[in-house]
Amino acid sequence: MVQLLRVENFNISSDGICAGEDHTLERPFGHVDPQRLFAWAGATASWPMRSEPGGSRGLDDYLTRDYARNIGAEIMGRNKFGPQRGPWPDHEWRGWWGDEPPLHTSVFVMTHHQRPSFTLSDTTFHFVAGEPASILDETMEAAQGKDVRLGVGGATIRRFLDADLVDTMHVAVSPVKLGFGVRLWESPDELLDRFHLEVVPSPSGVAHHLFWRK
Amino acid sequence: MVQLLRVENFNISSDGICAGEDHTLERPFGHVDPQRLFAWAGATASWPMRSEPGGSRGLDDYLTRDYARNIGAEIMGRNKFGPQRGPWPDHEWRGWWGDEPPLHTSVFVMTHHQRPSFTLSDTTFHFVAGEPASILDETMEAAQGKDVRLGVGGATIRRFLDADLVDTMHVAVSPVKLGFGVRLWESPDELLDRFHLEVVPSPSGVAHHLFWRK
Repeated sequence: MVQLLRVENFNISSDGICAGEDHTLERPFGHVDPQRLFAWAGATASWPMRSEPGGSRGLDDYLTRDYARNIGAEIMGRNKFGPQRGPWPDHEWRGWWGDEPPLHTSVFVMTHHQRPSFTLSDTTFHFVAGEPASILDETMEAAQGKDVRLGVGGATIRRFLDADLVDTMHVAVSPVKLGFGVRLWESPDELLDRFHLEVVPSPSGVAHHLFWRK
Repeated sequence: MVQLLRVENFNISSDGICAGEDHTLERPFGHVDPQRLFAWAGATASWPMRSEPGGSRGLDDYLTRDYARNIGAEIMGRNKFGPQRGPWPDHEWRGWWGDEPPLHTSVFVMTHHQRPSFTLSDTTFHFVAGEPASILDETMEAAQGKDVRLGVGGATIRRFLDADLVDTMHVAVSPVKLGFGVRLWESPDELLDRFHLEVVPSPSGVAHHLFWRK
């Protein structure tokens, strides 16, 4: 089986913004209210953070249920782990994901600042520096034949796109405008030289953008 | 986890026909050319019967890749196993699925005519009689906590729908008319008293009908 690098459930506004500025411990998305971008996913039965039964099982649910299918490891930018910049102030705080992270695999956090690996429930966090290609090699090995999920943020995804390492990408475009912040793209057309694209409107109002390598 | 009974990738014409008449060993779908209904699925990267690399990874692929996700066992009508009617002429012929069936679980074939179980590769075929509810109980136990897929044909699905045992159902409606044959429905509206329905048009021309229990 070919191992893929997959972006799953990446949420942006109609003007291409995926996160706000001024991240803090209290506001991981800065000035952006993440509910405006994530509400479609939270309404589905298969959303990994769902704590109660119920939820829809239509189109949106096909997207959220694919989040973990055949994933063996994840790469994430440092912002998805925590709001810190520069050297780690301490190792006590262990990320935004709680004692039972919904990731369930090895996770490779991209940072130039070393830190020992640790395990929370069935998720092990490693901290790695280097170019996207070498980080991907290391993560593919940890995935043991399964695919690798490329987590947020937008800057991390842009780096892997620029290095032409992404195989499939699902971007959910919400019908809200945010004006400024971290931008994934000016337009999805920027990627059409290298990717097939299907745009699938959902009854929830989101437009699912499905990319796969040409 | 709740175990679901799921219909996956069930293909019908725009006039509700899922199979032809006059099934034979050479023509499992009778007068209907199955390519006219199945072509969308065969074009995807995740189609279980795909023998070569390649294939699309857009909307249609989300549907075919869900075929096996979290499935622990399958129930199928006798027509999906073979064309025979009445008592088995012999036990030498072991179904339409070859030495390596793409099912990869225990399979329960509904028939009033007893036959010993047998295993081909990682698929074990059992032959069971009785009401849908009791067959479902037996299959759920074999699925060991995972979901059960309800395979074809149309008459089998109708029996489980009539007994209100189906939890989710994906029907791919192709833009062809077949006129006569085995019918799933006159209209999907027949099911709206018990199911939510989203209709999602695909660029391939198929309209995916996604049902889940209210």
